[in-house]
Amino acid sequence: MSKKRIAVIAGDGIGKEVMPEGVRVVDAAARKFGIDLAFDHFDFASWDYCEKHGRYMPENWKDQVGGHDAIFFGAVGWPEKIPDHESLWQSLLLFRREFDQYVNLRPARLMPGIIAPVVRKDGTPRQPGEIDMYIVRENTEGEYSAVGGRMYPGTEREIVMQETIMSRHGVDRVLKFAYELANSRPKKHLTSATKSNGIAITMPYWDERVAEMAKKYPQVKTDKFHIDILTAHFVQRPDFFDVVVATNLFGDILSDLGPACTGTIGIAPSANLNPDRKFPSLFEPVHGSAPDIYGRNIANPIGQIWCGAMMLEFLGHKEAHDAILKAIEAVLDPKSGAPRTGDIGGKASTTDVGKAIAAAL
Amino acid sequence: MSKKRIAVIAGDGIGKEVMPEGVRVVDAAARKFGIDLAFDHFDFASWDYCEKHGRYMPENWKDQVGGHDAIFFGAVGWPEKIPDHESLWQSLLLFRREFDQYVNLRPARLMPGIIAPVVRKDGTPRQPGEIDMYIVRENTEGEYSAVGGRMYPGTEREIVMQETIMSRHGVDRVLKFAYELANSRPKKHLTSATKSNGIAITMPYWDERVAEMAKKYPQVKTDKFHIDILTAHFVQRPDFFDVVVATNLFGDILSDLGPACTGTIGIAPSANLNPDRKFPSLFEPVHGSAPDIYGRNIANPIGQIWCGAMMLEFLGHKEAHDAILKAIEAVLDPKSGAPRTGDIGGKASTTDVGKAIAAAL
Ligand SMILES: CC(C)[C@H](C(=O)O)[C@@H](O)C(=O)O
Ligand SMILES: CC(C)[C@H](C(=O)O)[C@@H](O)C(=O)O
Repeated sequence: MSKKRIAVIAGDGIGKEVMPEGVRVVDAAARKFGIDLAFDHFDFASWDYCEKHGRYMPENWKDQVGGHDAIFFGAVGWPEKIPDHESLWQSLLLFRREFDQYVNLRPARLMPGIIAPVVRKDGTPRQPGEIDMYIVRENTEGEYSAVGGRMYPGTEREIVMQETIMSRHGVDRVLKFAYELANSRPKKHLTSATKSNGIAITMPYWDERVAEMAKKYPQVKTDKFHIDILTAHFVQRPDFFDVVVATNLFGDILSDLGPACTGTIGIAPSANLNPDRKFPSLFEPVHGSAPDIYGRNIANPIGQIWCGAMMLEFLGHKEAHDAILKAIEAVLDPKSGAPRTGDIGGKASTTDVGKAIAAAL
Repeated sequence: MSKKRIAVIAGDGIGKEVMPEGVRVVDAAARKFGIDLAFDHFDFASWDYCEKHGRYMPENWKDQVGGHDAIFFGAVGWPEKIPDHESLWQSLLLFRREFDQYVNLRPARLMPGIIAPVVRKDGTPRQPGEIDMYIVRENTEGEYSAVGGRMYPGTEREIVMQETIMSRHGVDRVLKFAYELANSRPKKHLTSATKSNGIAITMPYWDERVAEMAKKYPQVKTDKFHIDILTAHFVQRPDFFDVVVATNLFGDILSDLGPACTGTIGIAPSANLNPDRKFPSLFEPVHGSAPDIYGRNIANPIGQIWCGAMMLEFLGHKEAHDAILKAIEAVLDPKSGAPRTGDIGGKASTTDVGKAIAAAL
């Protein structure tokens, strides 16, 4: 197999601390499974870079990373210096759009050694394996548009409008991805998040396209719930779900809520995929740059490492993905006595946890 | 005090079963506190009515109920016969708009005798009183608009657009209501739900108006969270919240999620308020018409009864509200040995529970 080139962008804050551990474990997995990888490090998409150059990314960022097979991404944002929406629209959201990463894929999975904040109906705790779902989020259109504006600005009559825009092209391709994923999993169960009873133009359209795509996958069990009651179901019976497909906004919500229900929001990964492989896909932990804890080497690197596993899977190495996940679970298991960071009840450093997972591989 | 006239609309399905219990308890409270009430019953806003008349409501529905002091509402919808969005836009959503019920107010409160599906960080159960918040939802504009349409319909190039519309008038009035409510409560804490980092035109506007209104209430502690992480916080630390103010869509989501976290989604009430009192306000349980259990007198009437309490509070009788809430809590307490419906682990009928609460008053 040919060499795969990974663009490494650590970004801001704890991104710079967890990234070395991500690289450490991906590298270890590559050695173990004979995967030929090369890492190129970039300093842009960070406040450090912005301070020097007056912008978050160089003009030719696309040339610099566009030829890579994947982008391994840390975290972006330094709100003390620059509002989040500016840093994000200049970096993360730009990657998603310009590299047509139209699928945002996020697992929510109950892990050993993590107390899930949601319990069963009888009040007993849920067990690892009981919750295991993927959220498939549309990542390039929908509610995240820049189309709209203000009328009568600054007056009592002020009116502000913003367009939600869905295209058949955009909706169908993410649905197809979600159905393929559901079809590849044992439960073959796909849930669509909608709100067609209230959002009465775009969401009925979403439902229509789901119904159409469902016909092509008769072996996949399809259901749909309105987003309001769906969030309630995530809390009350998260074990029911397998693959959940959603618009940009609903997917954004569900992919925080899902990991919150499994207690893994601090360690959850996310993959921004261009399934057509015309452009590099981008793998970033769900957590942010966490300026408040930066500099102490205490951040939990598991999200970054889990991202590395998803990256290897997307590059064709499911065996490496599964092995990293097993190593993470082994280290998380309290019986292992392995180092844990403070957020999950330990005292270990970022580096210690990264090393332990690499060793467990 | 002058006589207050209540329009009673039971609607569909279990609405017809829980409403008599709602009326029973409201009536009992009225007697106890010397409140002069008259109930007028209406059969429209139901599939029964629609089957006879070809529409969910008569043309002159506004004349019929517009002069009442409040509308006591059951549930609407009979999906086997008519799609939900049709029945709802012809009834509930019409009331909200035509009667300018611009606040949708929903409590999420941990009640005795209910197992909350969310536990503390250490895995121990949360206790009654630990979660006690109100969601204040904008109820007339925002993401619920009927403005938009399709281009190139039925083709590969199909594009569907829908406008989110916010007005200063619409945003400021709901914020004012939320601040007044927060100011009246011991914690004086208001949380705004936003998504200004992604929904980059309307949501920054929402944030601006919140910041503006916050200046007028320096004694209220204001914070804001993006909706994605906010749903995670609802699960992880619901005890943190007091009053949460949100747009139409975000409020819709949070007001299902909040009661789901307290295990009360089957019994949660909601108030559609016209705080200016130019039009009647409408009080309806969060649950739907539940055709699957209709006809067996097993539905839990507590949501409807709790709505009755909110209605009396809005009509100026806080003492009656508090007394009904106490009676509900007394009956829910397992130590009371009072009847419970099947959804919360008992075998009692709808009627038994209604009678028990009226008696506990
Ligand atoms: C039925 C639906 C249109 C409605 C809404 O979204 O407003 C419901 O979910 C509610 O919250 O009252
Ligand atoms: C930071 C923000 C714009 C972003 C989003 O909403 O997409 C984030 O919440 C995410 O989910 O990656």
